[in-house]
Amino acid sequence: MSTTPAALSRYRAMVQAEMRASFPEAVSAVQPIYDFARYALGWQDETGVSADASGKGARAALTMLGAEAISQESAAIQRAAAGAAAVEIVHNFSLVHDDVQDGDEERRGRPTVWRLWGVAQAINTGDLMRELADAALRRALMHGAAASTVIAAGRRLNRATMLMIEGQYLDLTFERRMDVSVGEYLAMVERKTGAMMGVSLAIGAVLAGGSEDQADALDRAGRRLGRCFQMRDDWLGIWADPDALGKPTDADIRRRKKSFPILYALEHAPAAARRQLVETYESASGFGGMGDEGGELPEAQVDWVHQLLGEVGADAATDDAARVEYEAFRRELSEAAPHESAVADLEELALFTLERDR
Amino acid sequence: MSTTPAALSRYRAMVQAEMRASFPEAVSAVQPIYDFARYALGWQDETGVSADASGKGARAALTMLGAEAISQESAAIQRAAAGAAAVEIVHNFSLVHDDVQDGDEERRGRPTVWRLWGVAQAINTGDLMRELADAALRRALMHGAAASTVIAAGRRLNRATMLMIEGQYLDLTFERRMDVSVGEYLAMVERKTGAMMGVSLAIGAVLAGGSEDQADALDRAGRRLGRCFQMRDDWLGIWADPDALGKPTDADIRRRKKSFPILYALEHAPAAARRQLVETYESASGFGGMGDEGGELPEAQVDWVHQLLGEVGADAATDDAARVEYEAFRRELSEAAPHESAVADLEELALFTLERDR
Repeated sequence: MSTTPAALSRYRAMVQAEMRASFPEAVSAVQPIYDFARYALGWQDETGVSADASGKGARAALTMLGAEAISQESAAIQRAAAGAAAVEIVHNFSLVHDDVQDGDEERRGRPTVWRLWGVAQAINTGDLMRELADAALRRALMHGAAASTVIAAGRRLNRATMLMIEGQYLDLTFERRMDVSVGEYLAMVERKTGAMMGVSLAIGAVLAGGSEDQADALDRAGRRLGRCFQMRDDWLGIWADPDALGKPTDADIRRRKKSFPILYALEHAPAAARRQLVETYESASGFGGMGDEGGELPEAQVDWVHQLLGEVGADAATDDAARVEYEAFRRELSEAAPHESAVADLEELALFTLERDR
Repeated sequence: MSTTPAALSRYRAMVQAEMRASFPEAVSAVQPIYDFARYALGWQDETGVSADASGKGARAALTMLGAEAISQESAAIQRAAAGAAAVEIVHNFSLVHDDVQDGDEERRGRPTVWRLWGVAQAINTGDLMRELADAALRRALMHGAAASTVIAAGRRLNRATMLMIEGQYLDLTFERRMDVSVGEYLAMVERKTGAMMGVSLAIGAVLAGGSEDQADALDRAGRRLGRCFQMRDDWLGIWADPDALGKPTDADIRRRKKSFPILYALEHAPAAARRQLVETYESASGFGGMGDEGGELPEAQVDWVHQLLGEVGADAATDDAARVEYEAFRRELSEAAPHESAVADLEELALFTLERDR
């Protein structure tokens, strides 16, 4: 397993400063809703005490590397940090709403926003964060970006967010279907995860003065990386070392997630096993969130599904699918023809995505 | 009662065309989520058949009049239509999320989005509409607006939307409190309703080439109009002619809404009546939406509250409060010093807001 890439931490403080500066200063009577947002961003606990519970910041790192791929100039990097703050806030807004939609009670080892403050205020918190992201991006103007550049970056972020929401729409419909193909799944992942990773790279390039063509090439690369990321996530959801991951092996089977390995098995298992897999996933056993996907599978069925996945080779197939995306990422990257030092960092980040154990 | 102002219909077709053009053209597998948005905007029924169930379009009309106040030039009007489309879409996005948060099952006589397609997809639909609003505003570029102008308009829309969300935060917290003052209530209304009406006028001015000062003055006027609108809404929620309103008199009492008349009574009723009013509102009788505000009040209690409101003069006080805002609106408007024809239309619209019976 590779160690955490340096690119994840290099600009972390700079981006976090941009994110914090996007919040309005004095808000008095409405302070709590901003505190909910700060909690969601991992900056404080539920009582308002400072915390360090932010995510890895992969999208912010992509934006900064997207900028470095075009320019090493410090003003360009500073402008990109505003964009990096925006993509991180959009990503976290989507997680707050996703947790409501999926009924998830924990995120990064802490109670989710809806669990602490209710569904209504969680919807509100996500909505507010979406607005804060726009404020973050506009800070690029203060760092010298032209209005037309900020518009161009905003258009890309806007489109990617729409694609992400389309992906979430599809993901929710998949919960009620047992006939989702691997192809449909990959199209969903490209929207839900890929679009935001693509735009992260692309707006870094735009804010650093890159051309639309360079941004488009980096966008394509980022979408591939997003698919790679999700394939690895799906692999980890079943075959991860529980100590490294922080949650038990087979978590995704237990929760009946229709992740890549399951869909692969549905396409490749013998007819009888396939029928049994469908029946197992469709069996009702309680209520598991707003998607109505049913409760957790009993352990005996979890074991049976795990064994079936092994028999059809879903383990290797998922890993192969991730590697295909990784190679495609490298190809798209070479077409974007950016600075060599950024390429090395991006390849390290992609390799980490492919081989991470959590 | 005044008749519907001509300004509400003058640019309706132009703004609706801008709204429709903000949707992406071909979306294939994700068509349904865009159909949910079209339903929310009143353009089609739940089966996709064309309908005409949009709202009054008051915010769009304000944007167009805000533009006319600055310029009568047709290019300026066309640019403003993009802004009008954006504010209408933002307003409707907020209604989709509000209906989830309040557990409301009907809107404009039709089932709400969450009622038809579930809470998770309703959250998604609102999120998508927020993105479509940005796409709508950016269409001003196509109509010749400078990038810096679109940024300025976007900044205003962004800030107003944050205020609106702050207002919704406060409104939700008020549901659990019986000690909300009239002053707190007005501060909430200024955010939840006023900010969007203010920005509607202001971005019309900005897109038509007005100065920041002119836009600020129109913003202040619009906030006053928003408060006037809400005071009249609160009055109608209790004393409206049920035939004109389309819902029964006392609807807001029955639903225990802490609207202006109730808060006025809590501040002005004799101690014993105040205590009884608090007890009545706090009595649990079922579950009424995510805000947990309790179920509907029994008719005998509704009648008692209605009588109490009459005894303390809440009827006249609510009407007076609306008139105060109406006059303040006119004052702010005269300070903005716009074109006379737009002033006449805006005053007609404000008078309609003050005196409408539904």
